[in-house]
Amino acid sequence: MLRDDALTGKTIIVTGGGTGLGKSMTRYLLQLGANVTICSRRQAVLDQTAQELTAELANHPGAGKILAVQCDVRNPMEIENVLAETVAQFGRVDGLLNNSAGNFISPTERLSYKAFDVVVDIVLRGTYYFTLAVGKYWIENKIKGTVLNISTTYATTGSGYVVPSAVAKGGALIMMKSLAAEWGKYGIRLNAIAPGPFPTKGAWDRLFPEPLASMMDPTSRIPLKRVGEHQELANLAAYLLSDFSGYMTGECITIDGGEVLAAGEFSHLEKVTEDQWDMIGETIKQANKASKQEGK
Amino acid sequence: MLRDDALTGKTIIVTGGGTGLGKSMTRYLLQLGANVTICSRRQAVLDQTAQELTAELANHPGAGKILAVQCDVRNPMEIENVLAETVAQFGRVDGLLNNSAGNFISPTERLSYKAFDVVVDIVLRGTYYFTLAVGKYWIENKIKGTVLNISTTYATTGSGYVVPSAVAKGGALIMMKSLAAEWGKYGIRLNAIAPGPFPTKGAWDRLFPEPLASMMDPTSRIPLKRVGEHQELANLAAYLLSDFSGYMTGECITIDGGEVLAAGEFSHLEKVTEDQWDMIGETIKQANKASKQEGK
Amino acid sequence: MLRDDALTGKTIIVTGGGTGLGKSMTRYLLQLGANVTICSRRQAVLDQTAQELTAELANHPGAGKILAVQCDVRNPMEIENVLAETVAQFGRVDGLLNNSAGNFISPTERLSYKAFDVVVDIVLRGTYYFTLAVGKYWIENKIKGTVLNISTTYATTGSGYVVPSAVAKGGALIMMKSLAAEWGKYGIRLNAIAPGPFPTKGAWDRLFPEPLASMMDPTSRIPLKRVGEHQELANLAAYLLSDFSGYMTGECITIDGGEVLAAGEFSHLEKVTEDQWDMIGETIKQANKASKQEGK
Amino acid sequence: MLRDDALTGKTIIVTGGGTGLGKSMTRYLLQLGANVTICSRRQAVLDQTAQELTAELANHPGAGKILAVQCDVRNPMEIENVLAETVAQFGRVDGLLNNSAGNFISPTERLSYKAFDVVVDIVLRGTYYFTLAVGKYWIENKIKGTVLNISTTYATTGSGYVVPSAVAKGGALIMMKSLAAEWGKYGIRLNAIAPGPFPTKGAWDRLFPEPLASMMDPTSRIPLKRVGEHQELANLAAYLLSDFSGYMTGECITIDGGEVLAAGEFSHLEKVTEDQWDMIGETIKQANKASKQEGK
Repeated sequence: MLRDDALTGKTIIVTGGGTGLGKSMTRYLLQLGANVTICSRRQAVLDQTAQELTAELANHPGAGKILAVQCDVRNPMEIENVLAETVAQFGRVDGLLNNSAGNFISPTERLSYKAFDVVVDIVLRGTYYFTLAVGKYWIENKIKGTVLNISTTYATTGSGYVVPSAVAKGGALIMMKSLAAEWGKYGIRLNAIAPGPFPTKGAWDRLFPEPLASMMDPTSRIPLKRVGEHQELANLAAYLLSDFSGYMTGECITIDGGEVLAAGEFSHLEKVTEDQWDMIGETIKQANKASKQEGK
Repeated sequence: MLRDDALTGKTIIVTGGGTGLGKSMTRYLLQLGANVTICSRRQAVLDQTAQELTAELANHPGAGKILAVQCDVRNPMEIENVLAETVAQFGRVDGLLNNSAGNFISPTERLSYKAFDVVVDIVLRGTYYFTLAVGKYWIENKIKGTVLNISTTYATTGSGYVVPSAVAKGGALIMMKSLAAEWGKYGIRLNAIAPGPFPTKGAWDRLFPEPLASMMDPTSRIPLKRVGEHQELANLAAYLLSDFSGYMTGECITIDGGEVLAAGEFSHLEKVTEDQWDMIGETIKQANKASKQEGK
Repeated sequence: MLRDDALTGKTIIVTGGGTGLGKSMTRYLLQLGANVTICSRRQAVLDQTAQELTAELANHPGAGKILAVQCDVRNPMEIENVLAETVAQFGRVDGLLNNSAGNFISPTERLSYKAFDVVVDIVLRGTYYFTLAVGKYWIENKIKGTVLNISTTYATTGSGYVVPSAVAKGGALIMMKSLAAEWGKYGIRLNAIAPGPFPTKGAWDRLFPEPLASMMDPTSRIPLKRVGEHQELANLAAYLLSDFSGYMTGECITIDGGEVLAAGEFSHLEKVTEDQWDMIGETIKQANKASKQEGK
Repeated sequence: MLRDDALTGKTIIVTGGGTGLGKSMTRYLLQLGANVTICSRRQAVLDQTAQELTAELANHPGAGKILAVQCDVRNPMEIENVLAETVAQFGRVDGLLNNSAGNFISPTERLSYKAFDVVVDIVLRGTYYFTLAVGKYWIENKIKGTVLNISTTYATTGSGYVVPSAVAKGGALIMMKSLAAEWGKYGIRLNAIAPGPFPTKGAWDRLFPEPLASMMDPTSRIPLKRVGEHQELANLAAYLLSDFSGYMTGECITIDGGEVLAAGEFSHLEKVTEDQWDMIGETIKQANKASKQEGK
């Protein structure tokens, strides 16, 4: 979508960049000229992704370079190491894409305190640790950096059956808005994306074991009647990490085919057929007639 | 719910007060000691309601009095007449309950410009005309009045198939917030209630002709698994019109049994059985195990 | 505000109930007939409050009883102990008021990871631990309990300079909505209140050391031009914990004198004088004239 | 920002496209290859803009063509004429940019019913008339069109002193969400942009006569400390009208330098100096110390 050099000269850290949507976004950032550091807990996965993307982009003119650094985002030392290695390799850091996540589907009353903590620690604590580390670096070095969080629509609406994730994403969303208000004076921007369903083979299967998988087909509930494509998310992410969005901060953009609009009290009437509407239409005609008689 | 004298000495105008929820709220306001002017387009309906409620409350100690004045809320002259008659009868006006509504269910592409206008004029134009008239009266007379709008959850979420109503209610909601910000300095408060389904025999049938009626049973979609009772809405309305809510302004309170929470991406997993969750539970155990191995 | 027996027969746990707003709400819950367990980290403070309120209500007919149990909400064992002691003393638990908080004002870049964690652990972790413990108890015992969270407007808007608190309150708000969606089927309700400034001598001074105190006078920024009174918050809290609000769940009610409406882009024009508006008014007259010429 | 051919083959109608931001967006849409019909009440202004932009883009490879059609958006006949002329000229219509506006700044109690109506009719009625006309055309012709509304942050927050505009923009925003939910099944998308201050010489002066102008300098209140540039808005508009945003519908994107975040209760503490924070910092150190002693 963007011009080829949209991110030339930028260095961006992508947490959870080794797999799934993180990998897709990393690919596009590289194509647009950014250098990218990917990090996650599994070095082997990161290395494979780095190798694969490097090969893919070998002949892509102006593509950026990739660095893979192991990191558990719950550990500030490891976060600071990612930052240091990135600066050592690429000279500086301009962007942070908080994409690491953890989630499982369960009735909440079946969760232990510990199970709840695991998700909150990865998703929320990891996000504020990483943002705090990078923000301090930017303020100290007078860099006008930008943060992008991968959020979710239920960070605003709430959702049953994924409550630890909802809690963590909800907290991270408010962190984003709060720091956008506070750090705007330093030229630091923070934004978020709330994606609907963008399935990734593998991740999707783990998140939705049968019989959930067959119950989860979201396409019928989504106004646009399809799931999202990775490139559609990557387009938006690249825009928000680029200077083209330089006047946007504190914003969370939903890209979900309209899924969240399901809250509309009567939107489910989609099931009424045209013939049924014909019948119902008489009501409307009468309403119009009545209104004309009143002579408004 | 409230103490018996919670509204003694107050005079409140209720638009659309002759039927349905408007009538139920009027009854409770009278019980709590308020004088109430009800208005709508049909004088006969108003008179019957006034007579009925007067009879009902004949032996209710401290109950207020009721006045019925015909009014098409799209006509500023008629609105100013309601105001004048109320002041003539009761001495002053303290509250305005914008409750008039008009709605029909239809695919939007089937609507004429005119049909769209009819709903917007009653619901939106009527609301801002009435609020403007009463607000000017309050500011001129230094009365710390209060406005309560009956809104709807789709005034915030939007909804298909009731689009003119959604547009009108959406505009009225923002009027409420805007004037709360602007007129707070005069001690004028404005709030709103967004009710879920509170069925009224008659009105409900007109709004949902078959086959809609059978498709509309909302109880399964509502977390609390029931529709609301009129008194539950009346409780909240009376609180918001009383001085007990004196520090609240600009707020819209949803009372819907959780219906609007349906937007939550995974909340529909309610359909998964306990046995199915047992199977799925293995995933969680593994996640916990994995997390422990990492030595968090 | 409510009838004297509004909470008779209910038992409610109030975290942070020993001081400030927690104490004021506890007093009113007792007056309305509820038994209340207050808990916080400091037993001495709890005991003094229990003694004081017991003395105050000695002659209040129908007042409930109070129990003081030490508890650090970050510790599940201590939470389960509060629950066990309450059941032992009062027979059951019907309500949970998550009121514990911790906060300090600071530029975020001055915070250590640890300082950030302290607030998040008390406010967020404490809230989900306690809610999880009580929710499991209710589901197991088929009790239709209700949770009330003390939230804040910046749990939705975000705010600079209190970022850890914003993160934690933001997460807790989404927990509330998520569980309202999920646990509605058990008859469990969850709601929240977002209070504006309700100063408490002592707490307020600690939160706002000079020179903040003098910069913090919020009354000029608040549409209603005053801070809130504790009883106004207690009224709302009691309503939400009572059966009178039985059809409300998943809702967060703002009671802030309109403070949050400050977001309105032009609301600060309050500073324009009447004379200045007279001058500006010419613009409007011309607009009206122009519109009439167009013959609408 | 976008690739040069991002809108090649598309035809877009821009209401209010003759001046200000509408003109800037039109210029960029043409550059990206779209044909554009601009419409407003003044044919002379439209013609001049059409001539000017045609001259500007004479040597721009792949630029689209422009058509100027007079239209009062409050008149369905004139709207249908714009549609017919556009189809006659360019073969079809793919996009609608609802950009027409009218506004003035005033205390609400100074407004006549008529003055209130003027703004609501242009901004709200004009928007739903135009959207209804184009939507029917798309559904009939099975075209997967897209609508973009220029909204405002106070369509969500409300704002004093611009209440008719707030009401109208608030209603139009909910129309957008509602139709996104309902018309998604036809492949029709609707989105909106809520811009902060993007001044246009002339329009800005008319909207803010002295002494407002000097009171209105918004840069100090805006986290990013500057107003927006027209191209920044045009970038976002073009993205939302292009197929690159094909999975986004029902969304309103704020681009305001963080202005709306001012709602954050403590965000105004930006005025505290570093020295003052040093003093206040002692509080934090003590909080950390206290927390360590508790041995978390």
